[in-house]
Amino acid sequence: MKIVNTPEEVRKQVALWKKEGFSVGLVPTMGFLHEGHGSLIKKASEENDKVVVSVFVNPIQFGPSEDLASYPRDLKHDTELVSECGGDMIFSPSPSDMYCEDFCSFVDVENLTSGLCGAKRPGHFRGVCTVVTKLFNIVQPERAYFGQKDAQQLAVIKRMVRDLNVPVTIVPCPIVREADGLAKSSRNTYLSSEERKAAVILNKSLKKGLAALTSGERNAEVVKNIIKDTLNSEPLAKIDYVEIVDSSALAPVTNINSSILTAIAVYIGKTRLIDNFTFNL
Amino acid sequence: MKIVNTPEEVRKQVALWKKEGFSVGLVPTMGFLHEGHGSLIKKASEENDKVVVSVFVNPIQFGPSEDLASYPRDLKHDTELVSECGGDMIFSPSPSDMYCEDFCSFVDVENLTSGLCGAKRPGHFRGVCTVVTKLFNIVQPERAYFGQKDAQQLAVIKRMVRDLNVPVTIVPCPIVREADGLAKSSRNTYLSSEERKAAVILNKSLKKGLAALTSGERNAEVVKNIIKDTLNSEPLAKIDYVEIVDSSALAPVTNINSSILTAIAVYIGKTRLIDNFTFNL
Repeated sequence: MKIVNTPEEVRKQVALWKKEGFSVGLVPTMGFLHEGHGSLIKKASEENDKVVVSVFVNPIQFGPSEDLASYPRDLKHDTELVSECGGDMIFSPSPSDMYCEDFCSFVDVENLTSGLCGAKRPGHFRGVCTVVTKLFNIVQPERAYFGQKDAQQLAVIKRMVRDLNVPVTIVPCPIVREADGLAKSSRNTYLSSEERKAAVILNKSLKKGLAALTSGERNAEVVKNIIKDTLNSEPLAKIDYVEIVDSSALAPVTNINSSILTAIAVYIGKTRLIDNFTFNL
Repeated sequence: MKIVNTPEEVRKQVALWKKEGFSVGLVPTMGFLHEGHGSLIKKASEENDKVVVSVFVNPIQFGPSEDLASYPRDLKHDTELVSECGGDMIFSPSPSDMYCEDFCSFVDVENLTSGLCGAKRPGHFRGVCTVVTKLFNIVQPERAYFGQKDAQQLAVIKRMVRDLNVPVTIVPCPIVREADGLAKSSRNTYLSSEERKAAVILNKSLKKGLAALTSGERNAEVVKNIIKDTLNSEPLAKIDYVEIVDSSALAPVTNINSSILTAIAVYIGKTRLIDNFTFNL
């Protein structure tokens, strides 16, 4: 497994690959990889000749009171997983490899970023769009792979790609879950064993919401209340948001008559977890 | 001369060129081309196998009270000039080819855009950076050519390219002037014959400022006052700004001890004209 740290090294290797006619896939990650990331890397290696996995805890997408310093890191384990899943190169830059001191250029997607996670995390998606733009420009992949767990991120990146004519195909990949239904997340490692048990309530509540939808309920408020009531039944859970929005513009929906995204963010103790499902009409 | 209107048509042609191993240069313009643009196209055709000239009056870089509707257009003459100067394709999209109704993604360069023209034209450089990003992504050129007349634009684009790892080499091209020294500009066409004569004061004032610098003056205020006094001697001229800033960060300079940009914006009647020079120490 080749691990490189600078944009120049990535460009050099990718240029050699492209000279040989190889297609290149990119899996952007913040590291501490789990089976969810593994599924993206596997899909990327099925669809491309070469796969670059970026491992970078991107400082500009964290708010001042967020977990940048404590965000888990384990490049040794990441390297093993990338190798097992068929990746060809890890790009693991330092913050100074990515942002020089007088860095001042940003990519911003409006509208889609004002609600859901964006409402509580000002600047988060600007940080995400900026680093993803940089990664796309450094790697110049044919395809890039994003997990549907970060549903708003996926919608925002898709919009950015459409609006700015970015020459990369975005490939969404399904959420990977633990046996009990909890969505895989690097942040699950923050949970105590008691909290870990309680965290199953996220997926459980979404299942109840989905059941209401499949049995014909079309009032978003009713569905949201079913989810909220379920979440509130768990003493360790504190709701951040429960929202039903349209799948592409992410605007709140009152009556469900098109494809929607149901997204939740919930604190389990001090750990903020997210989960979602889409429902296509 | 091939004229295409949609991003898809550009991509298709450029892909064919790249398959044949041709290098591609891009000259982004707002049309109504003059010899200044001609010099960019000539340089691009010297340095690349194929040259794309975009002709697009970009609505999102005009303020509400600016001259979007009246901005001069002449695609027939543009086509002749592009052909004479060695261009291979004109990309002339309509606003709806570039911006769909729910467009909401923007590229922003901070700091460098707060002064000079940016101070009076909020959102202007955001519009420029966004459209240039789109054009780069559509054409994917090796090199792109920008005139030094728009000195702040050039500095902003260079910063954007550096910060976002944009895989395009920016080639600055010198200002082309009329016989009497007036910098060529599509906006010169707005001037009455009396105003046209008065407009020579811009270059005249800069020459006096440069003379002071070359004879050793290092106090920016003194140099600016020489320029201002010259401009004020012309009754039809109204100063918008006269600034001396450092060449790369565009921060105002008090004592001149490094490379600087001296930039002016002046109303001649209702027409706002710009000019500048750089002075390297």
